[in-house]
Amino acid sequence: MGNQKPSIPKGTRDFGPEEMAKRNYIFNTIKEVYALYGFQQIETPAMETLKTLMGKYGEEGDKLLFKVLNSGDYLSKVSDEELAERNCLRLASCLCEKGLRYDLTVPFARYVVMHRDELQLPFKRYQIQPVWRADRPQKGRYREFYQCDADVVGSDSLLNEVELMQIIDTVFQRLGIRVQIKINNRKILTGIAEVIGEADKIVDITVAIDKLDKIGLDNVNEELRNNGLSEEAIEKLQPIISLSGTNDEKLNVIADVLQSSEVGVKGVEETRFILDCLKTCDLKNEMQLDLTLARGLNYYTGAIFEVKALDTPMGSITGGGRYDNLTGIFGMPGLSGVGISFGADRIYDVLNTLDLYPKEAVTTTELLFINFGECETAYCLPLVTKARQAGIRTEMYPDKAKMKKQMSYANAKGIAFVALAGENEMAEGKLTLKNMKTGEQKLVSIDELIREVK
Amino acid sequence: MGNQKPSIPKGTRDFGPEEMAKRNYIFNTIKEVYALYGFQQIETPAMETLKTLMGKYGEEGDKLLFKVLNSGDYLSKVSDEELAERNCLRLASCLCEKGLRYDLTVPFARYVVMHRDELQLPFKRYQIQPVWRADRPQKGRYREFYQCDADVVGSDSLLNEVELMQIIDTVFQRLGIRVQIKINNRKILTGIAEVIGEADKIVDITVAIDKLDKIGLDNVNEELRNNGLSEEAIEKLQPIISLSGTNDEKLNVIADVLQSSEVGVKGVEETRFILDCLKTCDLKNEMQLDLTLARGLNYYTGAIFEVKALDTPMGSITGGGRYDNLTGIFGMPGLSGVGISFGADRIYDVLNTLDLYPKEAVTTTELLFINFGECETAYCLPLVTKARQAGIRTEMYPDKAKMKKQMSYANAKGIAFVALAGENEMAEGKLTLKNMKTGEQKLVSIDELIREVK
Repeated sequence: MGNQKPSIPKGTRDFGPEEMAKRNYIFNTIKEVYALYGFQQIETPAMETLKTLMGKYGEEGDKLLFKVLNSGDYLSKVSDEELAERNCLRLASCLCEKGLRYDLTVPFARYVVMHRDELQLPFKRYQIQPVWRADRPQKGRYREFYQCDADVVGSDSLLNEVELMQIIDTVFQRLGIRVQIKINNRKILTGIAEVIGEADKIVDITVAIDKLDKIGLDNVNEELRNNGLSEEAIEKLQPIISLSGTNDEKLNVIADVLQSSEVGVKGVEETRFILDCLKTCDLKNEMQLDLTLARGLNYYTGAIFEVKALDTPMGSITGGGRYDNLTGIFGMPGLSGVGISFGADRIYDVLNTLDLYPKEAVTTTELLFINFGECETAYCLPLVTKARQAGIRTEMYPDKAKMKKQMSYANAKGIAFVALAGENEMAEGKLTLKNMKTGEQKLVSIDELIREVK
Repeated sequence: MGNQKPSIPKGTRDFGPEEMAKRNYIFNTIKEVYALYGFQQIETPAMETLKTLMGKYGEEGDKLLFKVLNSGDYLSKVSDEELAERNCLRLASCLCEKGLRYDLTVPFARYVVMHRDELQLPFKRYQIQPVWRADRPQKGRYREFYQCDADVVGSDSLLNEVELMQIIDTVFQRLGIRVQIKINNRKILTGIAEVIGEADKIVDITVAIDKLDKIGLDNVNEELRNNGLSEEAIEKLQPIISLSGTNDEKLNVIADVLQSSEVGVKGVEETRFILDCLKTCDLKNEMQLDLTLARGLNYYTGAIFEVKALDTPMGSITGGGRYDNLTGIFGMPGLSGVGISFGADRIYDVLNTLDLYPKEAVTTTELLFINFGECETAYCLPLVTKARQAGIRTEMYPDKAKMKKQMSYANAKGIAFVALAGENEMAEGKLTLKNMKTGEQKLVSIDELIREVK
């Protein structure tokens, strides 16, 4: 290949040591909280059969799947005609049997169906793995990115919703990010549409209501009118548009408006139950009922969640909801579930912007032994071992390089302590320990050094 | 798609909760030890450009690369002639620009070259990610599997080799697996070939020597004769074939045989230095000089390592060595390195066979609150929160199911304690705590419960 200048595929990223340390801090925090709530981790293969993936993400999604060329003689089953036809989509299904996973939900559904006999229901699983989408790369959007999903399947209980809100609250509390947790319910939105007799206008209505603060009530009503809502419908919507106060006050207003809609009443009851339970759960972040929250409407059937950071503008950093019939497409009907997904890339950006990474999370090596040559390293080697046995992340600079170079290595890696042993130290059986922050130096035994560094 | 029966691509695996817990135990142990020695984690994308991957693994390797079909109109740049030609290899390079990584070494070399200006040398990196190979699937061989590599690049010092041996020793000590760490040196093998004048016979010689225990000296010599070695060469090899005793004794014999070979002498010196250093490092496992160790001969240029488990028959569970010119192929010559790779799948099997997983590593939920209905769960919810705040991995069964079902859930998940609160407990502001192992039950306050479970 010669002296090529290497690159990586567009939309993909390398993660260097500092980025990895920060990302691990996020992932580990999420994992620990998931485990605290009894969720168990699974992993599925990067490649799924195209049979599993195709038709699950709409027509657009099918196009965004990365397809993997069959290995070996991948042309053997393709006729001359099929080749000559040059139909990319049709030909792809001949050339490829596998694709890269597009999300974690479809592989999870496939997993549940394949392992139905081993699984204890309700099954609380979490999964943190990369997914791939052939989206047009743009700022903040990647072709490879991690999803961090938790779902409970096989239980209709709203206690699962309660628990997932607690998980969200705990994760962001541990990360030090102040958030607002928004909750809505698909059934409430359906109820609203029913009551005003405009079943297909849910999205228009939520979009218009969402603009209240910006454009004022008159303009919202005007927009609804332009969207084809009748004056009667707009009249009925007024209490909903001007909704304010506590969650309980809002729920009372909504309950009043929706009393004629069975599904609407159900949505109010569900939301009330979830919010009432959460009052006893010592949440650190605010729960807010927000009727304009309308994510995943062709997917979610009950509660809908979304999380926004309070101290920096950023889109949704976590979301989720309740869905029906996760596994029906794979021949196992009637299994509903509820899940959430943390947006690791956005959380990463929030932590960076607010400078919230704890120092321990990003420090790697704590102690560096300077290399003065063969005789000195022979003296140091057992001491290095002792420091490590005491749990101190320790390096010995491998080469007898100039002091300046070794010191700049320590600085570049953010190493807090440097140990030096020359003739004098060796004669006394000791070391000089330098605190890289204060510049302070002292002569110490290895035991003293360990106490000092720890 | 209808009611299809889902499957996963051959050679790939799902990892369920128990497998994941065990695998995480292995990966976390390796990560902690890598970090203890100052190695920093990086990650590279699953997809690399085929330019980066092709030609790096030999002709066979090129065939085993999974190639990813270009997205969009992937046929636009393919001529009718190229299509009609039906040359799979040639056509693939038109249809595909990307492939799945085949190992972690080539992506690492690519990473080092692309990030050369940010990197502080020596660069000690570790990387734990899956790789993909279109190998014929067979028992114990998968098309997707994790590699766990650590490498130091940009330092020729043998202290790096010493450190990597310490890492191996520490990892297996922590995992509780007794191992033998074998070491050899490519320069010694080259020296042997030089001395006997048979430079191209290294592999034949090591293979024959390896059979000494099984077939005896006469048959080894016969095999060497059949491989075309001269009587003089075989005569010179006798001390090497019958090599025994301590590592020092072996090195003395080899030094004697190789004194006329400059490279051979160098190999002996290197090995002696590494083994001498390790004597002062408090290793828990045995280092063994083994001249029959001949892995990666077209790759490694200095030390070669391999690890075998002592208490169960299993192939090599870890390996590595020193190599020159990692990045030359990407236009950055002169960068040598040394690395090791833990074989996670085999280590998994060893730990299973020897039943060495610590109980903590595989337990998930510690405490389950039984669900007796809405009133009781309302009573329990704040207590569940308290248990979690105390760090106890806690669940509340979400549905008001039959007691038997809830208990069998606890058993299936290996939950050690169950908490029950009915009318009596609620009246007293207490809980009944049941130890699932002993069957013992007692009435406790939430604070007593927390003390008991922790």
